[in-house]
Amino acid sequence: MTRIVMKFGGTSMAGIERIRIVAERVKREWEMGNEVAVVVSAMAGETDRLVNFCREASSLYDPREYDVVVSSGEQITSGLLAIALQAIGVPARSWMGWQLPIRTSDGHASARIEQIDTTALGQSLANREVAVIPGFQGLAPGERVTTLGRGGSDTSAVAMAAAMKADRCDIYTDVDGVYTTDPRIVPRARKLKRVTYEEMLELASVGAKVLQTRSVGLAMKEGVRVQVLSSFVDATDDPEPGTLIVGEEEIEDMERQLITGIAHDKSEAKVTLAEVPDRPGAVAAIFGPLAQANINVDMIVQNIAHSTGSTDVTFTVPRAELTRALDVLEKARGDIGFSKAIHDTRVAKISVVGVGMRSHAGVAATMFDTLGARGINILAITTSEIKVSVLIEEDYTELAVRVLHTAYGLDSEEEAA
Amino acid sequence: MTRIVMKFGGTSMAGIERIRIVAERVKREWEMGNEVAVVVSAMAGETDRLVNFCREASSLYDPREYDVVVSSGEQITSGLLAIALQAIGVPARSWMGWQLPIRTSDGHASARIEQIDTTALGQSLANREVAVIPGFQGLAPGERVTTLGRGGSDTSAVAMAAAMKADRCDIYTDVDGVYTTDPRIVPRARKLKRVTYEEMLELASVGAKVLQTRSVGLAMKEGVRVQVLSSFVDATDDPEPGTLIVGEEEIEDMERQLITGIAHDKSEAKVTLAEVPDRPGAVAAIFGPLAQANINVDMIVQNIAHSTGSTDVTFTVPRAELTRALDVLEKARGDIGFSKAIHDTRVAKISVVGVGMRSHAGVAATMFDTLGARGINILAITTSEIKVSVLIEEDYTELAVRVLHTAYGLDSEEEAA
Repeated sequence: MTRIVMKFGGTSMAGIERIRIVAERVKREWEMGNEVAVVVSAMAGETDRLVNFCREASSLYDPREYDVVVSSGEQITSGLLAIALQAIGVPARSWMGWQLPIRTSDGHASARIEQIDTTALGQSLANREVAVIPGFQGLAPGERVTTLGRGGSDTSAVAMAAAMKADRCDIYTDVDGVYTTDPRIVPRARKLKRVTYEEMLELASVGAKVLQTRSVGLAMKEGVRVQVLSSFVDATDDPEPGTLIVGEEEIEDMERQLITGIAHDKSEAKVTLAEVPDRPGAVAAIFGPLAQANINVDMIVQNIAHSTGSTDVTFTVPRAELTRALDVLEKARGDIGFSKAIHDTRVAKISVVGVGMRSHAGVAATMFDTLGARGINILAITTSEIKVSVLIEEDYTELAVRVLHTAYGLDSEEEAA
Repeated sequence: MTRIVMKFGGTSMAGIERIRIVAERVKREWEMGNEVAVVVSAMAGETDRLVNFCREASSLYDPREYDVVVSSGEQITSGLLAIALQAIGVPARSWMGWQLPIRTSDGHASARIEQIDTTALGQSLANREVAVIPGFQGLAPGERVTTLGRGGSDTSAVAMAAAMKADRCDIYTDVDGVYTTDPRIVPRARKLKRVTYEEMLELASVGAKVLQTRSVGLAMKEGVRVQVLSSFVDATDDPEPGTLIVGEEEIEDMERQLITGIAHDKSEAKVTLAEVPDRPGAVAAIFGPLAQANINVDMIVQNIAHSTGSTDVTFTVPRAELTRALDVLEKARGDIGFSKAIHDTRVAKISVVGVGMRSHAGVAATMFDTLGARGINILAITTSEIKVSVLIEEDYTELAVRVLHTAYGLDSEEEAA
């Protein structure tokens, strides 16, 4: 007997017709004799509607009351899916976060799941009942409703799978899997049959938005096998219809590629502080105040010192935080001692990701050569064990992704539909 | 210190602007030093939207899941009102039905409140916190969400007031009180300052739709002083701005009227069974099957036996149940033995209500005389201790209400705004 968690996003739950399609898909798994728990999102647009109500009521809303309001979206869809399942002969019941309960931290509006009690749930599953669980919600120590922050339903699903010791966690979404790169840029992008947690984390955090990053981290920590599938493509005949996200040990050497994918990210801005005095503590004077203001600095480049004893420091911050970052720097100007701050929002980060690069040299060299041959200037570089990222001018984004996709041999034989 | 429950209906909660007005009104009571619990309905239209979702999902929906879905409407407004109260400096928190808890029977979609735990709530009120409680919902013995049936928020408010031993339960609605009759028919109708529970029950059940009947019954049983007020009229200067519903002992002899109000009701249909054999058990043969089919029979008239040994029996049933009633009677025709069933939906019931009639004869006679003088034919009569009802042709409804309102001296000096 196999135990699975199925998770459906807001687009899949948008209206009764779609909920009926979801019910049919759940029924198929249930008819195979599987124990099935389904985690659902609110109807597409509903959470925005509820969040706006809270904001209208007060710009400084109490997050505990916000949680009461916005958690209702998933409450509605879980009740409706249970009804739709019963209507096609599948015994089903909904379980609110407070009923199981799903214990979370006290961090209202962005709580962390701490422990899920599966006693009653296990009994229900053993009785061949499908469990329908609202994603995104839980119960704080004071017995008040919490939510996990936007996109939290993926995390709910993975946490349920871990607590239930499920064999698989299937995430149904509006794409049919994880691709080597954005198929809108490279029509010859290939769907990956398998990808490791680490690669998925790098791909997700740099722009391939399929799964919430936090859910991938949790899956890695708990060893949950996650499968990304399309809600809208019927692929019953395909034994591996989507992308499986698993530990590295599950990926055979033969299928292992040097590079798994190419990601791009246009959400960062570049800041250069000119003529920073080249002395110990200069860097701390810059990044200390930014960290205190909760501004995430990503790439950092420090040029060789000028003969004048000063240096230029370049780094990236989220575009959404740029104004705040410039304010913070201006206030710290006395401590830092730069002559001027130059910023540029028209930059893009291109990343090459793959666990295979651990054992292969030359990945970065290929990247620099390929971009150089097309006259694409590299503004900054960062690397991790399984990733090389470069900052380039935004206008070159698509060109860079395409030439790198070809250079690393990722192009498929035919274009995607 | 005074403890009060305030209840706001769907029209008062329809959108953030209106919720803000509600918050201001709550603040006024709170600033006087009162302990305040607020019971709220869902936004106008929201419950219908949610009920329709359930019906679309399955015509035979599971009432337990229906309750999960529809209870979310009040969950949303209670969170939003708590936010709106905090925004104007009033400490407030929401309490879901399962949090208090409000214990109900297992009758999903039409549960009965059995017991309310006010321990935590009392502590919160003592700390000068306003409690915001979603109406219409509770918790069944199996720890699943229940709802009380449509209009149940009035009942929630009265039950909360009883459990909290509140000094008053103020029901804010879209009318500013209970009138001697429908002001759309009689512009000179007067707002009643006080009315007894018994009168209110008769007025509500025969058509003056201000409060849910069940809530009035509960208020009478528990001795809760209920005040009906308008959400939309600001009447701070008026010491008795609405209508107070209280026990008979609270109404001074001086202000006691013979007749409190005139109600009309167009929801019934008349059925006549012709030539029913005049033998013992004949009446039981008619009304037994109707009762078994859960069809409520109201007025009954049995004519004097014909010389043939048969009689005509006339009675009323709800119009919505007429087809079903005729089916039931047709199936029982062999047992009853009538020659034909005649029905008429164009009838109206006019009722004269007042506790004063207990000690005064002649109320019914005045009614029959007044109607007779206008040529209005009486098709059936029922009386109770505090009510006389007659069935007339529907076309005469407004005329009958007007002439009776004048005949019993209920007309005010000036027309209502």
